[in-house]
Amino acid sequence: MPTTNRQILLASRPHGEPTLDNFQLVETQLPSPAPGQLLLRSLYLSLDPYMRGRMSEEKSYASPVEVGGVMGGQAIAVVVESNHPDHRVGEIVLAPIGWQEYALSDGDGLQEIDPALGPVSYALGVLGMPGLTAYTGLLNIGQPKPGETLVVAAASGAVGSVVGQIAKLKGCRVIGIAGGAEKCRYVKEELGFDDCLDHRAPNLADRLRTACPDGIDIYFENVGGEVFTAVFPLLNNFARIPVCGLIAHYNATEAPAGPDRLPQLMHQVLVKRLTFRGYIVSDFASQYPQFLEEVGGWLREGKVKYKEDVTEGLENAPRELIGVLRGENFGKKIVRVGRS
Amino acid sequence: MPTTNRQILLASRPHGEPTLDNFQLVETQLPSPAPGQLLLRSLYLSLDPYMRGRMSEEKSYASPVEVGGVMGGQAIAVVVESNHPDHRVGEIVLAPIGWQEYALSDGDGLQEIDPALGPVSYALGVLGMPGLTAYTGLLNIGQPKPGETLVVAAASGAVGSVVGQIAKLKGCRVIGIAGGAEKCRYVKEELGFDDCLDHRAPNLADRLRTACPDGIDIYFENVGGEVFTAVFPLLNNFARIPVCGLIAHYNATEAPAGPDRLPQLMHQVLVKRLTFRGYIVSDFASQYPQFLEEVGGWLREGKVKYKEDVTEGLENAPRELIGVLRGENFGKKIVRVGRS
Repeated sequence: MPTTNRQILLASRPHGEPTLDNFQLVETQLPSPAPGQLLLRSLYLSLDPYMRGRMSEEKSYASPVEVGGVMGGQAIAVVVESNHPDHRVGEIVLAPIGWQEYALSDGDGLQEIDPALGPVSYALGVLGMPGLTAYTGLLNIGQPKPGETLVVAAASGAVGSVVGQIAKLKGCRVIGIAGGAEKCRYVKEELGFDDCLDHRAPNLADRLRTACPDGIDIYFENVGGEVFTAVFPLLNNFARIPVCGLIAHYNATEAPAGPDRLPQLMHQVLVKRLTFRGYIVSDFASQYPQFLEEVGGWLREGKVKYKEDVTEGLENAPRELIGVLRGENFGKKIVRVGRS
Repeated sequence: MPTTNRQILLASRPHGEPTLDNFQLVETQLPSPAPGQLLLRSLYLSLDPYMRGRMSEEKSYASPVEVGGVMGGQAIAVVVESNHPDHRVGEIVLAPIGWQEYALSDGDGLQEIDPALGPVSYALGVLGMPGLTAYTGLLNIGQPKPGETLVVAAASGAVGSVVGQIAKLKGCRVIGIAGGAEKCRYVKEELGFDDCLDHRAPNLADRLRTACPDGIDIYFENVGGEVFTAVFPLLNNFARIPVCGLIAHYNATEAPAGPDRLPQLMHQVLVKRLTFRGYIVSDFASQYPQFLEEVGGWLREGKVKYKEDVTEGLENAPRELIGVLRGENFGKKIVRVGRS
């Protein structure tokens, strides 16, 4: 056993896009578990867009990370010492321990991972929070019906890829939006979406109109920004818009210039009878067993495909989170902190 | 029987607020019903905010009235001649005949009114489209629960008054918003709302915050504008916003100046898990029998009160519709066109 731990702290709150200065790597003494506690060694960190919100002071659905505290987030970890009756050494768990190599736990919030379900890192993605976000938002709010058109952005990512593939299984026409030709090729050819548009190329709105000749019945909103602007005029009567993320806005520092589009939005909500509904994965936590069975089955059968983008080394987590917020990852971003 | 009919035509489309010039009163020959037709004599016209939309060219959920055509809308009428097997002379019907004293009908869209349910004009209000709008939007989308706080504007009007009274019956704390002290007094003292705020007095947002110490769980949106601006920061997690009207915007000629509040709206939808859902009364037409039984019962028992604002004379309909769009009516606005 080593005697030191490495941790990444939130050194300061970002203004706009986070920078490396907002983080600090520190070496601390490796703690020992007291009675009732256990010591975890981290294997993988999850990097997710929602983390930008935790870095700000604004109270959101989750509390902000404190300045000087360990940067928050979920990890896959192995139990290396245990004074806890419910956990044994060698057990693999999903643990809210944030960005560090080792962590003490009193067992709160730990969830054992069954390695038989697939690579344990999948519990950070397709079989974890992002997958459950995709599954519950699409089925409960999106309510896909055969023949309907669904649009989802960040289509090669952990949430978007699962949304689109499930919508295909439900009989929808599915149009993805992603950044760059390589991601778009993957979304069409590997994931089987009907089309995928590159939002970095010009005239997104025109291309989306062409790709959606019958309008849009479900827009799974996880990005906002110019994708929403392109989608908005194409929404059909009774369209559903599950809102689970707005990554295009996360680094915004002020409200954009006018005109004020809020009245126009409300007008369209009325005349087209649109439903906008925000949700957070925990709102549907009770559907986790059903999700695990169904999506786990599709994954084993090859009906749902999943791609990870793995970076080695805890010290790279800050750079990689900045990259996630820029859309630089290709697939679900995780950081390998240690080997099992 | 007279030999002439009086009709009000849409003479031109308004730009912004309608003016009397947009309407034209004409005298035409009284028509005779052909085989299969019937002749209706109008008793009451309904004047409703949605009519502003029909005067514009923009396609909405309803087709626009043609320039030169009879101004559209629902009326209560009596059958004065019938060559139709399903309708007899003397029958009272709800009829989509618009603004005229007499009209031919082939029976399409007619609905017989049972005078035993109350004054026949109630079929234009509390027992008709506005009442059903209130009932279905509140129960299906608003989903009121005991102890929750509901806010509704135009609280003395046909929709708002019913929304608030049903919400009280469901155990909610109910705050109305209305224009002027007299309406507010009526809403509180006669309708039994917990409070009613005058939107014409200063500092609406501050007064609303004081009136809603536990935030707002349901905002029944029928006005938009500054009321929405006051409500928005007070919405609680999981608040529901049925959107059935936006009267404050109906006369708008351009998008308001910035900043653009759309991103902020979407951000709040996400972090507070809000539901915005637009609807039109016809979306819930199948609930009409249940509505009529339940609201009709409350009305007979005095649990729901209803106020009409009656103007005499077809020729006054244009002036009165302009007044409705200004909030000058006090209670459900109807025009008495003839006597039964």
